[in-house]
Amino acid sequence: MPEKVPDIQTDPPVEIQQILDGDVMAGARLIRCIEAGDPATARMLGQLYPHAGNAFVIGITGPPGAGKSTLISALITMFRKKNFSVGVVAVDPSSHKTGGAVLGDRVRMQAHAGDKGVFIRSMAARGVAGGLARAARDTCLVLDAMGYDIIIVEPVGSGQADLEITTLVHSLGLVAIPGTGDGIQAVKAGLLEAADLFIVNKNDLPGAGSEMMTLEHLVQQRSLEPDTWQPPVASTCARTGEGVDRLADLFLDHRQFMKNNQVLEKKQTDQAGDYFNTLVRQMVMDRIDPWVDRQVTAFLDTAEQQAAVTADPYRVAQKLADRLTRSLRDVTIY
Amino acid sequence: MPEKVPDIQTDPPVEIQQILDGDVMAGARLIRCIEAGDPATARMLGQLYPHAGNAFVIGITGPPGAGKSTLISALITMFRKKNFSVGVVAVDPSSHKTGGAVLGDRVRMQAHAGDKGVFIRSMAARGVAGGLARAARDTCLVLDAMGYDIIIVEPVGSGQADLEITTLVHSLGLVAIPGTGDGIQAVKAGLLEAADLFIVNKNDLPGAGSEMMTLEHLVQQRSLEPDTWQPPVASTCARTGEGVDRLADLFLDHRQFMKNNQVLEKKQTDQAGDYFNTLVRQMVMDRIDPWVDRQVTAFLDTAEQQAAVTADPYRVAQKLADRLTRSLRDVTIY
Repeated sequence: MPEKVPDIQTDPPVEIQQILDGDVMAGARLIRCIEAGDPATARMLGQLYPHAGNAFVIGITGPPGAGKSTLISALITMFRKKNFSVGVVAVDPSSHKTGGAVLGDRVRMQAHAGDKGVFIRSMAARGVAGGLARAARDTCLVLDAMGYDIIIVEPVGSGQADLEITTLVHSLGLVAIPGTGDGIQAVKAGLLEAADLFIVNKNDLPGAGSEMMTLEHLVQQRSLEPDTWQPPVASTCARTGEGVDRLADLFLDHRQFMKNNQVLEKKQTDQAGDYFNTLVRQMVMDRIDPWVDRQVTAFLDTAEQQAAVTADPYRVAQKLADRLTRSLRDVTIY
Repeated sequence: MPEKVPDIQTDPPVEIQQILDGDVMAGARLIRCIEAGDPATARMLGQLYPHAGNAFVIGITGPPGAGKSTLISALITMFRKKNFSVGVVAVDPSSHKTGGAVLGDRVRMQAHAGDKGVFIRSMAARGVAGGLARAARDTCLVLDAMGYDIIIVEPVGSGQADLEITTLVHSLGLVAIPGTGDGIQAVKAGLLEAADLFIVNKNDLPGAGSEMMTLEHLVQQRSLEPDTWQPPVASTCARTGEGVDRLADLFLDHRQFMKNNQVLEKKQTDQAGDYFNTLVRQMVMDRIDPWVDRQVTAFLDTAEQQAAVTADPYRVAQKLADRLTRSLRDVTIY
């Protein structure tokens, strides 16, 4: 999808109605403002909020090289065949020093460039974990309000970021690649309990069968109460599209199961509650971070205090943190 | 290394002198206290601080399945042959829901179990990125004070956590596995600029040659000023040990280069400054986090305020964050 990067300064402001009408340029502009951390977005997101909540949000996670982007591209094709419109949020790790992100994954998804029922956004992680989860969730809200039936979220690599998306997706698919010990890595990362679907991709590679067995074995280790979703293990070859039709159906099965058991509604309520907490925490931290920075700089203003830090940074840091937070006890907000 | 997990409650308190004498059980106990977030450790770390700063700290990063643990094990053997003692901090991602960590990597390093010149610690990530960086750095300080010549840090998977270790190591090696596109993934994760050494491991796999070429090409893209370290690309097979001798020498070359150019000292000073900032920030956050939680819970006490959140979480969160941080302006700490 050839996309013009919108310019917050010169582009016209985004109208709520444009977003609700599914205007792609307006959506892209608002998402760009979210990424830039523009504080003005909160007002707009608040207005969109009552119009969202209809999309089915899928997360696709797994280690680098597992073929997530190719798989998502194949999934898009499948969901389109089933007449769903699809939005994608691909979270790219940003370059530490340059702040730039390589959008190779997006390039791989250009097969859908001409399709108006598909909207793909890449998003740079920019080194703030809390901020990233928030930006990804806000972007999902925009895509949801734009009317996309299904939203697919692809987070960076494995580990912490993957666990964060469990707080914003309804259904999480974990992609494993045969022969790399992904099963055990998934357990290590805590994704075994978090995943709703397991996918052995590149199933033409040697070891695919044993990877399936390992995962099926691990799934059986999960304690199962009655009326609990039993995560299936799917076998796919994203490159050829083999198994992706069934995978799409499995995701839809999971949604139907959650609807039948009132799990989806509860999940949405819980996630909204968690998100409010995250929002407040993030906004508080955004205000406190520069404040702490200023206090530290001011503190290090004298040679005497610098010497104290060099001798024992731990003691000095504790004293400073104590002083900085002492005032918090006195806050009354009601 | 068969290790008894120390019990903070019943085990005798750790004496500073024991750590400085390199007492392994005392070191393990103190590290266990660091992991547990025991606030009493700060005093001890402060006392150890002036005795540290002699170790050469190496980071080994790369995607899961790249063979990092096997490579580190082979590196330990090499450094031991060169008469260096070696400490290892392997950061394991913890299980999201159970809090447990799979210590498979440590098991793989048991080849060094009988060697008193080697000390290996696994550490659970436990979901707090800031806290993890701090725990890893504090553990390095302990190993440093215990007298280990070389400390090797292995962080979890790729992405954010990997970038964090650049703030605590003197030399960072990035491991790539042939044929998985690790080169481009490394660029995406910002590790190209951060790495001091590139390692193509499993060099018996097809694609090793082209992986080397890709990395060498990428390294040449880095803007090079005079007297700048030119990151070499090493080729290893950790399983057989091939190329690991040269790799160990390359790390030592990098240290020598940094010493000759006064880069090492500057790096240590910069990292110490950053760390003081991190310490204060972390300690402030540790105090503020539960406070924010309490305020949010108290705020959601009335049905009216709950309804306001459901209607527009963004507006309400902003108002609440404003009120919570208003008092900060009044703090005077001098």
